[in-house]
Amino acid sequence: MLYLVGLGLGDETDITVKGLEVVKKAERVYLEAYTSILLVDHTVLESYYGRSIVIADREMVESNSDEILRDAANVDVAFCVVGDPFGATTHTDLILRARELNIPVRTVPNASIMSGIGATGLQLYNFGQTVSMVFFTDNWRPSSFYDRIKENRDVGLHTLVLLDIKVKEQSLENMARGRLIYEPPRFMTVAQCAQQMLEIEEERQEGVYGPDSLAIGAARVGAKTEKFVAGTLKELCDSDDALGPPLHSLVLLGRRAHELERDYAREFAVNTESWDELWGKHYGKQ
Amino acid sequence: MLYLVGLGLGDETDITVKGLEVVKKAERVYLEAYTSILLVDHTVLESYYGRSIVIADREMVESNSDEILRDAANVDVAFCVVGDPFGATTHTDLILRARELNIPVRTVPNASIMSGIGATGLQLYNFGQTVSMVFFTDNWRPSSFYDRIKENRDVGLHTLVLLDIKVKEQSLENMARGRLIYEPPRFMTVAQCAQQMLEIEEERQEGVYGPDSLAIGAARVGAKTEKFVAGTLKELCDSDDALGPPLHSLVLLGRRAHELERDYAREFAVNTESWDELWGKHYGKQ
Repeated sequence: MLYLVGLGLGDETDITVKGLEVVKKAERVYLEAYTSILLVDHTVLESYYGRSIVIADREMVESNSDEILRDAANVDVAFCVVGDPFGATTHTDLILRARELNIPVRTVPNASIMSGIGATGLQLYNFGQTVSMVFFTDNWRPSSFYDRIKENRDVGLHTLVLLDIKVKEQSLENMARGRLIYEPPRFMTVAQCAQQMLEIEEERQEGVYGPDSLAIGAARVGAKTEKFVAGTLKELCDSDDALGPPLHSLVLLGRRAHELERDYAREFAVNTESWDELWGKHYGKQ
Repeated sequence: MLYLVGLGLGDETDITVKGLEVVKKAERVYLEAYTSILLVDHTVLESYYGRSIVIADREMVESNSDEILRDAANVDVAFCVVGDPFGATTHTDLILRARELNIPVRTVPNASIMSGIGATGLQLYNFGQTVSMVFFTDNWRPSSFYDRIKENRDVGLHTLVLLDIKVKEQSLENMARGRLIYEPPRFMTVAQCAQQMLEIEEERQEGVYGPDSLAIGAARVGAKTEKFVAGTLKELCDSDDALGPPLHSLVLLGRRAHELERDYAREFAVNTESWDELWGKHYGKQ
């Protein structure tokens, strides 16, 4: 059996009791470690689970999945995923491949950022489609997120923006020389995301959002140290100290917002007065 | 401290290790039991947790929350919620009240149907806003869900439809006579939902969806017995035997769907041929 086990969002104790039983008993345990991270190192997981863990990077999952699935028709394999196995990144390919090989699959769900973001006090019913933001480079500034946010805004819905992480990245030079030397991991912050969003608005000028648009920055959602900062996109360009270490996410507010959402998020506001004023002007309207 | 503890979607072992520790140590344990249910009775939870549990019905949570929060500045109170505490139903009011009373609040996240529905193979990125469907009565047939689905469809997004549950309902006669006798709980099925959707399309005639629209019915998502049935809305009007016991949910497909989603869900199709044919005609288009 192939088990896809969600690990939740925070630390080693966020696994479910059911998931922990699966991991303890499985013949082999993999950790998908390229789309999200826990706030603890995988060695902490190993000692907590009492199991050694094989780190599965993107290449392994996408190009060498038969190794993960080896003999899984006869023995149990646990494929652990941060958050929920079907959260932001689904592992549809892996499951389709398992089906081809007649390997039964079972999933152990867990918290995902896509529901955990409700901790901002924003109603999940009021969210439109989720978008991703990647690190811009000098010559690669993909802005399809802008069109998606526009679709949500036109309806009046909030948008959850998931932020890029880069693990096991090679510099161009190391890649060219075939040296397997990797850069330190990078995690996009809310400030970097807000900055990139404003750059694209500057380019596109369609008024989808602007420096005065209200948003909520979120850090380490679901963990003890979770932190929220609510304010304008301009204010959030300067929120890194307040939010602290990764992972970060951002929610851009839609105008179809409820007073309860305003009141709840006010607690996180950089500036309560401007929060209430801008809300009154632009939000809470159908 | 007030802890909001997510219980996940299936049975007593879907609680997280962190959540279980909280429940075992708390001074009082409540179970919110009117917006969703687990697949096991609360007595199973009591024996698994080794704790007695107070069932918190809607009246208690909405009108008598100070009893739940009693002394929570000094002792730990666990308020358990099926799914994620900030899932489909947020308990914003309860937390705002706790803030007023200077009671610290912490959340233990867990799986929610809003991410768990990814088990259909549909990408969560492709979902628009979630809607709710209530049981129609002779003179109450609220159809605001139709407008919400239209908004999602216009953009090309999937819609998750959450289905009504009725617990602790009184008959009109018992209510009039002040008798505290409750009807057996009722859980809307995918077939009932599909039927109501088609009735409203019949009334509104805006072509938002129809008997040939593709959808996926889901039952007991996240549990061992989870079951999916994919087909047209008309086919789903007849899916109750295939899906089995509650809880059910339904996803209406948006046209901005990916081939991988088609291939994954084909496994659940009532009729593979018509699934592929209708998909080719109406879906997979930007």
